[in-house]
Amino acid sequence: MNQNNYCVIMAGGVGSRFWPYSRNHRPKQFLDFFGTGRSLLQQTVDRFRPIVPIENILIVTNIMYRDVILEQVPDLRPEQILCEPARRNTAPCIGYAVAHISARTDKANIVVAASDHLILQEDEFHRVITTGLEFVEKNDVLLTLGMKPTRPETGYGYIQKDNGKGIMDNVPDGICKVKTFTEKPNLELAKVFVESGEFLWNSGIFLWNLQAIRRAFRAFQPVIADAFKAGEHMMGSPEEIDYIQRVFPTLPSISVDYGIMEKAQNVFVMEASFGWSDLGTWGSLYSLGDKDENGNVSLKSDALFYNSKGNIVTLEPGKLAVINGLEDCIVAEADGVLLICKQQDEQFIRQMVADVEIKYGGKFN
Amino acid sequence: MNQNNYCVIMAGGVGSRFWPYSRNHRPKQFLDFFGTGRSLLQQTVDRFRPIVPIENILIVTNIMYRDVILEQVPDLRPEQILCEPARRNTAPCIGYAVAHISARTDKANIVVAASDHLILQEDEFHRVITTGLEFVEKNDVLLTLGMKPTRPETGYGYIQKDNGKGIMDNVPDGICKVKTFTEKPNLELAKVFVESGEFLWNSGIFLWNLQAIRRAFRAFQPVIADAFKAGEHMMGSPEEIDYIQRVFPTLPSISVDYGIMEKAQNVFVMEASFGWSDLGTWGSLYSLGDKDENGNVSLKSDALFYNSKGNIVTLEPGKLAVINGLEDCIVAEADGVLLICKQQDEQFIRQMVADVEIKYGGKFN
Repeated sequence: MNQNNYCVIMAGGVGSRFWPYSRNHRPKQFLDFFGTGRSLLQQTVDRFRPIVPIENILIVTNIMYRDVILEQVPDLRPEQILCEPARRNTAPCIGYAVAHISARTDKANIVVAASDHLILQEDEFHRVITTGLEFVEKNDVLLTLGMKPTRPETGYGYIQKDNGKGIMDNVPDGICKVKTFTEKPNLELAKVFVESGEFLWNSGIFLWNLQAIRRAFRAFQPVIADAFKAGEHMMGSPEEIDYIQRVFPTLPSISVDYGIMEKAQNVFVMEASFGWSDLGTWGSLYSLGDKDENGNVSLKSDALFYNSKGNIVTLEPGKLAVINGLEDCIVAEADGVLLICKQQDEQFIRQMVADVEIKYGGKFN
Repeated sequence: MNQNNYCVIMAGGVGSRFWPYSRNHRPKQFLDFFGTGRSLLQQTVDRFRPIVPIENILIVTNIMYRDVILEQVPDLRPEQILCEPARRNTAPCIGYAVAHISARTDKANIVVAASDHLILQEDEFHRVITTGLEFVEKNDVLLTLGMKPTRPETGYGYIQKDNGKGIMDNVPDGICKVKTFTEKPNLELAKVFVESGEFLWNSGIFLWNLQAIRRAFRAFQPVIADAFKAGEHMMGSPEEIDYIQRVFPTLPSISVDYGIMEKAQNVFVMEASFGWSDLGTWGSLYSLGDKDENGNVSLKSDALFYNSKGNIVTLEPGKLAVINGLEDCIVAEADGVLLICKQQDEQFIRQMVADVEIKYGGKFN
């Protein structure tokens, strides 16, 4: 294992999309969605263990999730959990982690990933990440992983490949320059993207070496770069928390995609295919779940279906659902709340959660 | 209060119609359906307290429910709970209670009622029962209560009134002879019944004096009469249980309606109206529940409905249901089972319960 490999796992999300299964105090990354016994965060950490020394794994999160992370991943030391005092999107988050690594070393190959995505083919994931880290170790590039699309998904951004390899030699197969990043397309456009063969799903997994990402921050996000440069000597010291508390909230809220990747010229994409999903919606969970002959999915508990089709059910393990005459619904129960919602109205869940917050003052949020 | 008034409450039902809310170990009569803090059995006992001395209340049930009854009605003495060793419908059940009363007295006015019905207007109920008990105290009649129908219900049997008062004088207003008992009608016939003004719902509430019902048993159910006559001297003694264990299962399984009321000539009906329901179906619960502007009912827990109508929801108190895009369904959750079922398929619940029994071996039954 390359001792210069580092991993930054972003675990600050508070998503309400899986309410009532996810809650403010227990967002998606800390849940065991598929009843495997490991939360998405635990699976993410486990996935990097063969590639990155455990002491080189950093998790960036909100202070309120610090304890649950230490509980779920007990072999992390507390100083490996970086706590954001405010939500400022991914660029300041990554800037903070980069400053932390800079305080320890000047030579690091870094992979950045979300804590709440699903990856089914771990061996292929390991091969891709290892190849990518070796590539970025030797080159001043910003590498992103692009997932070979399997359907015209409208929930993802897309990356358009450039046919050339740029001016570099020895670029491994599967890696090429990026022509453009795109926003989430409508269905028609997504179909064109997939058929063209030129577009990949933007996975939000980034790889680069320490000096390349520092240069990119200095060039495109100087405010963030300067803030962390000024605080770099405090990283890992008792002054770190105070400094971050004071400075972090003043930083611009901007994504690394928009703030750096779309602006830089040395951006490459590595085409990959390892059963990835961002688990962004009930629909994505439904598409991944084992279906009975009528297309019903039960994620964690037993279920009997009668005259029903296309439903996704998640109750607590050990419970039983008996369902008659229901179609295309989400049925989710957790901690005193039962949600029944047509899958097509999934985007409406946020509004329902807001209504519940207003009516019950956080009791069920 | 007339110290000769007795009450027999039948509480042996095991109904699966309200599964998963009702269970084998916790049938309907022991449940607090409306979140009032009192089970249907407790409400039934409470309803008779102003009319019948507490020591004259007998409850006939299955041995497995003895403890829950003593727990729910702690001022009953254990010998007031009569335990049937087998289910033999209502005639042997009532015969057993009559034998018990005969062992204590030769003068009693008895009202027989189910333990799991709902009565909304208690004052009117008290007036009707008191009037009825006074009538049967003085007359050799078998009196049944007929409920003035409010809709063409197909779930009830009907009683057709006779215009005359028979040969008796001094029959109170509202009491008349019975022409016929009918089975549950289809909807068309039920409409005719209701429009005619001659038909009443058969409530299963009976009133008679001790000698009248003993005579009726001797005349129409001699096997049952003889069995309890032979055991009458053991009632209330240590031999009672052994005797009942031995003899009760040998008795014919027959209802008091079919076995006595339809055969006897001295049958009267008292027309009454006190907000009665047998709570026989989810549909009957639905029709009784408070509805929001879209006809949704939540019995015990909070619920928010969106684009939904005509649903009945019962979760445990303190829980919250959030429901979007659901119509005319039953949503019931209890003890690890969630049932979602179209109301029109309610009769199908028995089959589902049987399937669950086969698949999970009683774990959820």
